[in-house]
Amino acid sequence: MHMTLLEAETLVKRVFEANGVLPATARSVALALVHAEAAGQSGHGLRRVPAYVKQVRTGKVDGQATAVAERTRPGVLAVDAAHGFAYPALDLAVAQLPAMVREQGIAFAAIHRSHHAGVMALTVERFAEQGLVAMMFANAPASMAPWGGKVPLFGTNPIAFATPLEGADPLVIDLALSKVARGKVMEATQKGTDIPDDWAFDVDGNPTTDAVAAMKGTMAPSGGAKGAALALMVEVLAAGLTGAHFSHQASSLFDEKGPPPSLGQAIIAIDPSAAAGAGAARRLADLAHEMARQDGVRLPGRRGRGLRAEAAKHGIKIEDDVMAAIKALG
Amino acid sequence: MHMTLLEAETLVKRVFEANGVLPATARSVALALVHAEAAGQSGHGLRRVPAYVKQVRTGKVDGQATAVAERTRPGVLAVDAAHGFAYPALDLAVAQLPAMVREQGIAFAAIHRSHHAGVMALTVERFAEQGLVAMMFANAPASMAPWGGKVPLFGTNPIAFATPLEGADPLVIDLALSKVARGKVMEATQKGTDIPDDWAFDVDGNPTTDAVAAMKGTMAPSGGAKGAALALMVEVLAAGLTGAHFSHQASSLFDEKGPPPSLGQAIIAIDPSAAAGAGAARRLADLAHEMARQDGVRLPGRRGRGLRAEAAKHGIKIEDDVMAAIKALG
Repeated sequence: MHMTLLEAETLVKRVFEANGVLPATARSVALALVHAEAAGQSGHGLRRVPAYVKQVRTGKVDGQATAVAERTRPGVLAVDAAHGFAYPALDLAVAQLPAMVREQGIAFAAIHRSHHAGVMALTVERFAEQGLVAMMFANAPASMAPWGGKVPLFGTNPIAFATPLEGADPLVIDLALSKVARGKVMEATQKGTDIPDDWAFDVDGNPTTDAVAAMKGTMAPSGGAKGAALALMVEVLAAGLTGAHFSHQASSLFDEKGPPPSLGQAIIAIDPSAAAGAGAARRLADLAHEMARQDGVRLPGRRGRGLRAEAAKHGIKIEDDVMAAIKALG
Repeated sequence: MHMTLLEAETLVKRVFEANGVLPATARSVALALVHAEAAGQSGHGLRRVPAYVKQVRTGKVDGQATAVAERTRPGVLAVDAAHGFAYPALDLAVAQLPAMVREQGIAFAAIHRSHHAGVMALTVERFAEQGLVAMMFANAPASMAPWGGKVPLFGTNPIAFATPLEGADPLVIDLALSKVARGKVMEATQKGTDIPDDWAFDVDGNPTTDAVAAMKGTMAPSGGAKGAALALMVEVLAAGLTGAHFSHQASSLFDEKGPPPSLGQAIIAIDPSAAAGAGAARRLADLAHEMARQDGVRLPGRRGRGLRAEAAKHGIKIEDDVMAAIKALG
C-alpha cells in the first residue's frame, strides 16, 4: 500500500482520535510515527500503532493527558508528560527551550512521566534547525546489566546529538548503547535462527548464540564496559535528573500490562555562539567538510534526511499487515 | 622510591617553578599529576613531567599564562587557558561554575587555548563533591578517523561523568572513545610485540596486528561506528563550542614541536534538584545500591578513590627512571 505522508498522518491521527486521544495529541503522535517511518526507522514507526492504541484503551497511556512545562530555574524546563505519550512533551520542549537557550546560553529540558521517545534524531534535529546544538538522553525498560552483572538494570538508553552547520543540513547522531537493537534478537527468536555470540548474554551472564536464551538474559552493551558505563550516565540524566522511573522500574512499551512506564527524557541545548562567538557555525561546517572529503565517510544523519525528502515527494510504502492492523483499530 | 603525596607535590612544584612556571600554576599542575599517579593513572601522572617541562622551556606551553574566565551568558563561563596548562583553567571552572549552576540549574564551562586535560575523573568528581552532576568532554591530537575513513580527524576524545549519591561517595565515569589507549600500541612498538587485530587500523584503513603500522594509521573507536559518532559529538562540544582547535589541527602533547596544541574542554554541570526536586540525590543512591547488590558489579570510580585514599595514608611509589628524569629538570 502506497500513501503520501499527509494521507498516512491523517489515517493515523484518525485512529488515535477514534480511540479517545485528544486531537492535538493524536496529531503529534501521528506526525512522529509517520516521520519515523519516512526516515527508514520502521521499528519506531507505524508498526507501533497497535501497541500504542492498546495502551490507550487500557489507560496505560492517558490519551487525555496534557503535558505541562514549568521553568523551575532560569536554565531548566521541567516537563510533566502526565502519563501521556512522549511526543507532545517533546513538542513542548522544542517550543519553549530555544528561547531559554538563547538567553542563558545553555538550557535543560527534563521530561518525566513519559513514554516511548521514538526516533530521537527527529527531536534533536529540530533544535539544530533553529541554530542550536542539542543532546538528548532517554531511558527505556531494562534490558542491559551493569558491567559484570547479570540482571537487567538499564535500558538500551540512547544518546542523540545534533549540530547546525553554516550553509548545510545539520549533523545528526542517534545511537542506542546496546551493541544491536533488541528487535534483532526478537526477530531471530521468530525465525528460529542463532545470533552472533557478541550480541547478548544468557541469564547466567554468559555470551549466547541462542536467541531465546538471550531474550531471557541481557543485551550486550556497545563497546563492552564503556557502553555499560555510558548507559549508567544516561540513566542518571534521563531518569535521575528528571524524576522519571529508572529503567528497571519501567513497564513494557509493547504491551498493556502494568502501570504507566513513566520513563524520562533529558534534552540539553546550547547556543554555539555563547562561548565560541559568531564564527562557531562556520567552523562546525569546516569540520563536517573535513569528514566528508575522506573517501568512504558518510555524514551522520544525512541518510535519514535523504529518505525523508524522498518520502515527502513520493510517499511511503506501508506493508499490508501493518495497514490492516491500523485500519482494524479505527 | 617512596614518597608521601605532599613530598611528591612539593618536588614537582619546585621543578616547574625552577623552569619559570608561575607558583600558583606550578602548584595546580603538581597537584593534578600527583593525584593522577595516586589514582593509578600513571599515563597521566608523573611520567608527563619531562614532556611538560620541555614544552614550557620552548614556549609551547606558556608557564607565565594566567587563565581568565568570562561569564558570556547567565549559564556560560568562557575560560581562556591562554596557552598555559589546562589545570589552572579547570580549577577556575571548578571554582566559578557551581554558583552559576545553583542559580541557573545548569551551566556550561567552555575552555579554549588549553592543553592536556589529565585525569578527567578528578575534575568531574570535584563537582559531584559539591552536590552537582557533571559531564566533561575533551578533544586531543587526532588519532581516530571518522567511521569509514582512513585519516585521523578526532582525538580519543574522552567523556567523563560524575554524580553525587546521598550518603555515599560519588559515582565517577571516565572513558576514552578509542577501544584501547594509544599508549598500549606505543608500548607494543617498544617491546616489538603484535597487537590484537581490533585495536587499530593501518594507513589503508585495514585492521592490523602490526603495532608500527598501527601507530602510522588510526585507533579503532570503542564500539565501532557508535564510538566514532560519539567522538564527533565530543569534538563539537569540546572544540566547536569552545573555540579551541579541532583535534586534527592540534599539535602533540608529548613533544615541544609546533605551536601550542590549543585544545578544548567542555564541562556541563547540573543541579540534580533543579527539575527532580530535593529527593534526587536519594534516588541516585538507590540506583547505585541496585547496581552494587549484583554479584560482580563494581561501582565506577570507586577503585580510583580507594587507591587515592591508600596513597594519602601510605604515599606512592615512584619508579627510579621517572624520579631521575624529574630530578634532572630541577
